[in-house]
Amino acid sequence: MPRIYIYDTTLRDGAQTEGISFSLKDKQEILSALDEFGADFVECGMPASNPKDAELFESLRGRRTGTRVVAFGSTCRPETSAEKDPQLRMLADSSADTVCIFGKAWDFHVTDALRTTLEENLRMIDDSVRFLRSEGKEVIFAETAAAAGAEWIVLCDTNGGTLVESVAEITSKVVRDISVPVGIHCHNDSDLAVACSLAAVRSGATMVQGTVNGLGERCGNANLCSIIPNLMLKMGYKTGVGLEGLTHLSKKVSEVANTRNIPHLPYVGDKAFAHKGGMHISALRKDTRTYEHVRPETVGNIRRILVSEVSGRASIEEKMRILGIPATDKNIGSILNTVKELESKGYQFDGADASFELMVRKSSGNFNDPFDIAGFRLFIDEVGDNKLTSEASVKVVDRLGNVEHTASDGNGPVDALDSALRKALTKFYPFLSEIRLVDYKVRVLDEKAATAAPVRVLITSSDGKESWTTIGVSDNVIEASLIALSDSIEFAIFRKETGGKGSE
Amino acid sequence: MPRIYIYDTTLRDGAQTEGISFSLKDKQEILSALDEFGADFVECGMPASNPKDAELFESLRGRRTGTRVVAFGSTCRPETSAEKDPQLRMLADSSADTVCIFGKAWDFHVTDALRTTLEENLRMIDDSVRFLRSEGKEVIFAETAAAAGAEWIVLCDTNGGTLVESVAEITSKVVRDISVPVGIHCHNDSDLAVACSLAAVRSGATMVQGTVNGLGERCGNANLCSIIPNLMLKMGYKTGVGLEGLTHLSKKVSEVANTRNIPHLPYVGDKAFAHKGGMHISALRKDTRTYEHVRPETVGNIRRILVSEVSGRASIEEKMRILGIPATDKNIGSILNTVKELESKGYQFDGADASFELMVRKSSGNFNDPFDIAGFRLFIDEVGDNKLTSEASVKVVDRLGNVEHTASDGNGPVDALDSALRKALTKFYPFLSEIRLVDYKVRVLDEKAATAAPVRVLITSSDGKESWTTIGVSDNVIEASLIALSDSIEFAIFRKETGGKGSE
Repeated sequence: MPRIYIYDTTLRDGAQTEGISFSLKDKQEILSALDEFGADFVECGMPASNPKDAELFESLRGRRTGTRVVAFGSTCRPETSAEKDPQLRMLADSSADTVCIFGKAWDFHVTDALRTTLEENLRMIDDSVRFLRSEGKEVIFAETAAAAGAEWIVLCDTNGGTLVESVAEITSKVVRDISVPVGIHCHNDSDLAVACSLAAVRSGATMVQGTVNGLGERCGNANLCSIIPNLMLKMGYKTGVGLEGLTHLSKKVSEVANTRNIPHLPYVGDKAFAHKGGMHISALRKDTRTYEHVRPETVGNIRRILVSEVSGRASIEEKMRILGIPATDKNIGSILNTVKELESKGYQFDGADASFELMVRKSSGNFNDPFDIAGFRLFIDEVGDNKLTSEASVKVVDRLGNVEHTASDGNGPVDALDSALRKALTKFYPFLSEIRLVDYKVRVLDEKAATAAPVRVLITSSDGKESWTTIGVSDNVIEASLIALSDSIEFAIFRKETGGKGSE
Repeated sequence: MPRIYIYDTTLRDGAQTEGISFSLKDKQEILSALDEFGADFVECGMPASNPKDAELFESLRGRRTGTRVVAFGSTCRPETSAEKDPQLRMLADSSADTVCIFGKAWDFHVTDALRTTLEENLRMIDDSVRFLRSEGKEVIFAETAAAAGAEWIVLCDTNGGTLVESVAEITSKVVRDISVPVGIHCHNDSDLAVACSLAAVRSGATMVQGTVNGLGERCGNANLCSIIPNLMLKMGYKTGVGLEGLTHLSKKVSEVANTRNIPHLPYVGDKAFAHKGGMHISALRKDTRTYEHVRPETVGNIRRILVSEVSGRASIEEKMRILGIPATDKNIGSILNTVKELESKGYQFDGADASFELMVRKSSGNFNDPFDIAGFRLFIDEVGDNKLTSEASVKVVDRLGNVEHTASDGNGPVDALDSALRKALTKFYPFLSEIRLVDYKVRVLDEKAATAAPVRVLITSSDGKESWTTIGVSDNVIEASLIALSDSIEFAIFRKETGGKGSE
């Protein structure tokens, strides 16, 4: 069986998803997660058309890991030579070793959308590929055609309308007719993107393009989180990824994109191995193969009915080993109970390592609270032509019982609270003045209750070198923020006092 | 081409979805919707195991429409004759003309889950089918096998693990070997339920079982909303349904089930025909077939044009055409400038149709502000052992200069503000008491400034039938929320005053 190359376009085609807008830091985080997972190619954006993407490619200059960073763009324009096309020049000058360019392969698109001749279209493709090759780039050509030196030709079903049999037939023909390796890029408009991608591989394609969780405009791109386990577990293909990291990758991308985790996603969703029907559960107790098509552990997921019993325990033991805390039956049991209780309230530790570490240390009696918040007040108003004001007062007590009571303005209540809290604590812990909040995310957990529903706040802080993320859940966004803020500062103090040893 | 029979199990297998619980009235409403749509069979539940289902079947006695009501159950138990099995007796006595019973066809299930012999298993199936036939029922046998008079044999991939090729091969073999018509029942654990159902039909199955929106436990059942249009529009099969009612059916079931409408669902989702990329939009204006696999009207859906800086003039013109606002060079230019300015502040209209519509109407002098917020104050505190409290006071003025000044508590500042604002405005616009916030999202836009950075708030509101999304951006989360809240209420009032004509 040939090895299949995994090409992720979450950061480019996935970024077309309505309502999603990745910051530079978001993109860097997703790239790292894909790198760790073992994706072969990660398409990071369009340096020529998007200044944020150009900044990302600049930040990646000199980066060397197993994952190849890809810049995306198009062929030169009609009546323009590739050398003189500024868009191709930017691709050539970008830090990416690999460039994926798209061109037209459907004559209807050429004549009616692009409004040029078929001959000029071929010239544009040929010229563009040759130019990028001469600039030392590996070239992937998307939307079929012309072998002017491209290393890969990728078949694209951009409107998502093609049936499985047609994809199989077209792929077989192209694989037979050309000598370079073939990739497949499907969209899910007919709910067939996964099936079409698998059919293409069976017909000889050796690269699959898609996105994590099937992000993408309209109905999304082909979902790599479904394609990869089908290829590896059911069809016997090899890839370069670590399949047991799949569920973590899926959740990481949901958190960074600040999208709702879709619980019924195959393989990686919270419900994918959750069992409800009584008969199924009793059959499962006799043998899990009765109603599970694969073992959840193979994709890093867990069976929901056994959640904290088996897999929960193993991951907690592993985490304690990393943190250097001796694991005993007693403290593992106590941590498991805390996790169960917090998860039932809406906590989710996948994206909040620092809070998880604090929770483990506290449950093991391995932590000395550095401060206590005795109370706070917030005032926000906007009356007549006056601008909006936010003011917080905070009272904190340190380990020796010293009290500090102070106040601060801020841009909004959470900023005022953060300023006042930091101002008070900096008196006891002067190094806190170097800590910055670098990201703040809020998610409503139960859409039926809207603004009165429990919210989950994730806060990422940084000391300029490393960053860490904490979580707070409450039906009050201020309280949830305060929990996450407080954890974030406690974690900073713990790191400082123990010589900078943090969660990694 | 043979006619394909559509068998819906939303009320039985779909009711296994975590978090869903249908009342008697819910079930009657969904049955009516399926009836109107033209489903051939509607599986309404298990009269023998669920008193609510028994009540539903009683309420349907004497009902005569095109859709056949199906009662679901199982074969008799091991060592029991069908006549003496109380579960089969209840199926026989139910108001349903058609009964679907399941039995075991996988020897592993028989010996390890059911723990009986293969011979006894066959006796149970044979005896049960004969009994129900003698009681005058049409019998559908689920999970393959034995032709003891069943009108249909349905192949079931209950754990959702089978690949497309295997389903095709097994179906071909069964269709060849038995003389009764064959159905297919797939689950989506491998993200292949739609493809497997289509492959079964191509291999000779003439009944497809599934649920509306793919509801069902774990990863859901095969989604009829994707299967039916693929069969009819792309594969040339006939069915008895009215395809243009598909989107309505999908939304109706979401509403009754009180689940969030999944926007990226193929064919029926709000995003299924939503376009963002500028190049796609300019091609679409030349010919919609360039980037649409089917015309949205054929499935009762609509094309949505998302506005973003990238897409520019073409998408604004298209949007104005849809809103019925005459587009002139002057007002298009003014709207473009407003969009650019707002987007540079962090606004993003592709997820906020209602705010975009208000902005277009306001920029075109096509809008009469229904109220003005003269001022507000917020108080939040938590001192000592007292719980956190949030209180808002708000002063609003209507078009006639009437002032309403009121206050409200809430779970957190935004909830308090929402309550106070709605309380004040309901005095002038009583129908606002029916509007609910259904989602609230916050995103920090510039990670470097953290809690002091501009934040983007997206609020989705609903009147129980339709929902709309508004946006607010500010460096203060309270102000951003207030902008989105205020837009949301303005939009509700506009729709009401113009006769319910909203963003489409």
